[in-house]
Amino acid sequence: MSLGSKVWMNGVIMNANSAYVSVSDRGFTLGDGLFETMLWTSSRIRFFDEHLARLSQSAVALGFTTPLDVTAIKKGLLALVEDEQGNAAAVRLTLSRGIGPRGLALPETTAPQLIATIAPLADTSAPAHLKTVSVPRLIGAPSTRFKTLSYLDNVMAQHEARFKGGDEAIMLGTNGNVACASCANLVFRYKDANLTPALRDGALPGIVRGRLLAAGLIEEANISPSQLALCEGAALTNALIGVRVVSSIDRRALDTRKTWPQSLRDTIRVG
Amino acid sequence: MSLGSKVWMNGVIMNANSAYVSVSDRGFTLGDGLFETMLWTSSRIRFFDEHLARLSQSAVALGFTTPLDVTAIKKGLLALVEDEQGNAAAVRLTLSRGIGPRGLALPETTAPQLIATIAPLADTSAPAHLKTVSVPRLIGAPSTRFKTLSYLDNVMAQHEARFKGGDEAIMLGTNGNVACASCANLVFRYKDANLTPALRDGALPGIVRGRLLAAGLIEEANISPSQLALCEGAALTNALIGVRVVSSIDRRALDTRKTWPQSLRDTIRVG
Repeated sequence: MSLGSKVWMNGVIMNANSAYVSVSDRGFTLGDGLFETMLWTSSRIRFFDEHLARLSQSAVALGFTTPLDVTAIKKGLLALVEDEQGNAAAVRLTLSRGIGPRGLALPETTAPQLIATIAPLADTSAPAHLKTVSVPRLIGAPSTRFKTLSYLDNVMAQHEARFKGGDEAIMLGTNGNVACASCANLVFRYKDANLTPALRDGALPGIVRGRLLAAGLIEEANISPSQLALCEGAALTNALIGVRVVSSIDRRALDTRKTWPQSLRDTIRVG
Repeated sequence: MSLGSKVWMNGVIMNANSAYVSVSDRGFTLGDGLFETMLWTSSRIRFFDEHLARLSQSAVALGFTTPLDVTAIKKGLLALVEDEQGNAAAVRLTLSRGIGPRGLALPETTAPQLIATIAPLADTSAPAHLKTVSVPRLIGAPSTRFKTLSYLDNVMAQHEARFKGGDEAIMLGTNGNVACASCANLVFRYKDANLTPALRDGALPGIVRGRLLAAGLIEEANISPSQLALCEGAALTNALIGVRVVSSIDRRALDTRKTWPQSLRDTIRVG
């Protein structure tokens, strides 16, 4: 079977072509749900525990009442990728609130939908060009604090970056500081320190970001656009790409020969 | 057939129980789409032209390339509600980007999904209690300028308002001014004027709001929380409820016997 031809849905492996949700599913009608994107490589799902911990905590914060069966999920994901063996792949786990009647109010009883899909990895080996975009990053809202199905602002941020000739976006938080890329965290090399935007500036608590913080290799900071214009280097981080070097920000070329990203990469590789 | 048992989907009337979208539909995975909620009453869809104009303009702004066939949509919606005759109902029209590969980038070719559902109207005859909520309203982003499927912040705003004992939320924009309710615009009676939050403060360009502005019955204003605390009356407006009087804001009782909302209602009724 080709990669992506199977889907795991509510405990069952099925053909991707017959995997559907109702048009009344709140994930579809209201963006009412969460997701995680995980890396399958070397016969394991990297950072599985961190991904599931974040998903569980986010679900509680959004008022989901059905606990996640982590053991069953892991078993399901492994069944989904078992044909892939040595091929690295992206595994996406989506949790939707499920079908609800019209209106925004959380239904008293819900049947959340839990769906896992696999897809090939994009080639992100080349250094990335970043473009500052006009789409702002909302600080303090559920859509920003958690990795939710209400992702349209990120979609349009990346679209704007690509329209401007870049690979990824730099989104500024509503307080004006640098927050994150459209689907990655940011690290900047600034005065010999590795800085990453603070959560209170709109950054998502990314898994790789968390690993690097815990290892003491990066530190949280409030980064203004004027500091951004002076950084000596930059990198993107997320669970799929690990650490990706940035070659330019708004057409200003950065020195990609610098060795500091390698220490970040080594940590992720070993971790 | 009971109300809501039928769905109109991509030109075809079908049973609601068999109306699905793919788990790879970007409306589901990324909140990548738009919707309109319309009132079916007295054998017509109120404000149909305004709803479709807003949907079309929003779709263009989000990079949708397939023009909407307004005539076919109107025919489809009328076929959907034909069994209802005299019963007022809510008609929701959802436009999703359709199936896409993994990632945020807009697919080069898409098959947008267009879906209409009907549901009973909620009883909104009683005056509403409003609660100011902590979920902020993002100014200037696609998710705020348009009525999108990325609606989770509104969901959580209403949830917070209900948790606090209210019926609807007052959301503040990221600049601190009053923006809107979770699924309605706001009008405040302040020093004998009828004021509604400005679009630049995060208000959605609502259909009823637009009608009342055009009629000169309300005017745009920047409304601070301290002005909110001094308003003499308030109302909610949207296409389903028309104009709903507000009885309290954060437990401060308002005088609901005031006659100013009636002039707003008369305009909507006649318009």
